[in-house]
Amino acid sequence: MGLRENITNPFSKWMDGNAPEADVVISSRVRLARNLASFPFPHQLSKEKANEIIHALQLAINNKKTRAAVGPMELARLAELTPVERQILVEKHLISPDLLKTREEETRALVVSGDEIVSIMVNEEDHLRLQCLLPGLQLEEAARICALLDDALEQTLDYAFSEKLGYLTACPTNVGTGMRVSVMVHLPGLVINGGIKELLAFIPKVGLTVRGLYGEGTEAAGNLFQISNQVTLGRSEEEIVSGLGTVTEQVIARERQARQQLYRYRRDALEDRVWRAYGTLRYARLLTGDETMKLLSDVRLGVNLGFLKGPTPRLLNELIVLTRPAYITKMAGKDVPPAYRDSLRAKLVREKLKDLPE
Amino acid sequence: MGLRENITNPFSKWMDGNAPEADVVISSRVRLARNLASFPFPHQLSKEKANEIIHALQLAINNKKTRAAVGPMELARLAELTPVERQILVEKHLISPDLLKTREEETRALVVSGDEIVSIMVNEEDHLRLQCLLPGLQLEEAARICALLDDALEQTLDYAFSEKLGYLTACPTNVGTGMRVSVMVHLPGLVINGGIKELLAFIPKVGLTVRGLYGEGTEAAGNLFQISNQVTLGRSEEEIVSGLGTVTEQVIARERQARQQLYRYRRDALEDRVWRAYGTLRYARLLTGDETMKLLSDVRLGVNLGFLKGPTPRLLNELIVLTRPAYITKMAGKDVPPAYRDSLRAKLVREKLKDLPE
Repeated sequence: MGLRENITNPFSKWMDGNAPEADVVISSRVRLARNLASFPFPHQLSKEKANEIIHALQLAINNKKTRAAVGPMELARLAELTPVERQILVEKHLISPDLLKTREEETRALVVSGDEIVSIMVNEEDHLRLQCLLPGLQLEEAARICALLDDALEQTLDYAFSEKLGYLTACPTNVGTGMRVSVMVHLPGLVINGGIKELLAFIPKVGLTVRGLYGEGTEAAGNLFQISNQVTLGRSEEEIVSGLGTVTEQVIARERQARQQLYRYRRDALEDRVWRAYGTLRYARLLTGDETMKLLSDVRLGVNLGFLKGPTPRLLNELIVLTRPAYITKMAGKDVPPAYRDSLRAKLVREKLKDLPE
Repeated sequence: MGLRENITNPFSKWMDGNAPEADVVISSRVRLARNLASFPFPHQLSKEKANEIIHALQLAINNKKTRAAVGPMELARLAELTPVERQILVEKHLISPDLLKTREEETRALVVSGDEIVSIMVNEEDHLRLQCLLPGLQLEEAARICALLDDALEQTLDYAFSEKLGYLTACPTNVGTGMRVSVMVHLPGLVINGGIKELLAFIPKVGLTVRGLYGEGTEAAGNLFQISNQVTLGRSEEEIVSGLGTVTEQVIARERQARQQLYRYRRDALEDRVWRAYGTLRYARLLTGDETMKLLSDVRLGVNLGFLKGPTPRLLNELIVLTRPAYITKMAGKDVPPAYRDSLRAKLVREKLKDLPE
């Protein structure tokens, strides 16, 4: 699948709802920061040098060993993509918003595999940011795939590495393994019962960060949170992955307990809330992005608790991405005012939800 | 159809949506206050005398002329009906709440025709209150049917009548024709655009009264209002009927204009509101009576404006009655706490709305 078709198709492999612990964990991500020896870090990189890196990477991904490790990948320069296409890649979590935050679009590039499990940002904060994004709780598998890709690229590329410090990175917080790991979790139970406050206070104490995926803190739109590691230096890859994994298991247990208690003690109110959300999504003619996230969260909770059968977790994941502004704009074929976007968003959601079994 | 089946069946002829001006006027009612000569007014009536009146009326409705005029009618003493059955008759607008406001239930009775167009309250404030209730704007037809019934009963009964004052009534405000006329109108357009305030101020100036059918003033649940005459003495039946008719025509014109303007200038928001209401009614698991009225009002507006096709006006009228507390209680077979009533109400509404075309 070419990159353009990837952008047009809202589905990414990470949206597959059929994955470990997918009732709470939407996706798992591992990201490795890598830089090439004898090149300045991107913020001091000339256009010519940046181009050299892009060329070197192009060769590296076409390398037989790389293709054997993670399958075919396609490289695109940022300048080849329209602003809407770039934004869609952000909304699909394949690149960071930071990759777009510059006027030097000619120095930047990205690589995406056909199933979108693997992506590489080129000349963002570091020369390379290798990413593996998988559905559900699969941190170890994501780390394994990242390591395969990393090893394959290293056959061709000369990484900046210090025996003492590990991989060298533009920002000192990434030095060492250069590894960032994160999970995207859906925590409606803890938000409804208030337990989220305790969690938000606890997680930083074990060296992790938690933030709303869209919006911040307890106001996180759609009750989606991202938990990630802060520290890389002085820890092994295995320690980083298992540390986040252990905390995630605890979060899963708390969230499931919260849901079960809500279902046991406030079942009528909970079912009412879920079905109203479903009814609104099925019939509303105007939906803002934030309201859509909130309603999708309620519907997902009903699906996970088993009393709402129509929408699949995969469809709900797709809808999160499909209803973000860039996708709507792409669907409209042009930039549209927010009010019209709300109308298009509602139409899109209606079409996706109609004819589902109830 | 017997009275008990009437009570069980939520449909009354006045709920027929296929009637003149039914997009604004739900129903038209004419009520005549009549008293029998040589009996004290009900508040001073002994049980024996009250019984004599009930017997006299029983004979009068079985009279061939009465049956020819308005068809077969059935009489029931209030004491024969359970509290829930009495309340249902109020909710169907066949009797007034005042008929139930006494401990002397043995002195009270009611008469209802099979199609429920005609009903008679016995020993409420007056000995007899004859009512004709028709769908849409049909005040003249309702007055004609009332007059037929009135004439037929007068063949047998000796009315208290003064050549100078007209029909004598327990309350002086009814003396003369003894005629009260009213229309039940649905005014969502005027409530949304604020025009209702002007209307509420204007109507009393022409000798009419307006009030919320459930609730008062601009807070009328379901945007349903009743407009009725205040004065009977010194005016002929024709003047009373045509007076209310003229004002109602003006109300209809204003309401239609308000709806068209909303549809023209705020179409997206209006359609969104209507469809959300429909989605909530179709899926909610808990519905209070007030919220149901509000949502039904929005849905009715969409049906009247032609963009929501599923529910018929008749079904919406039925749902207003079906979702009042007494009907829900009857459906449950016993008195139920309000929270459970909300659950039953939502279930009932869902069942009525599912499988409708969209």
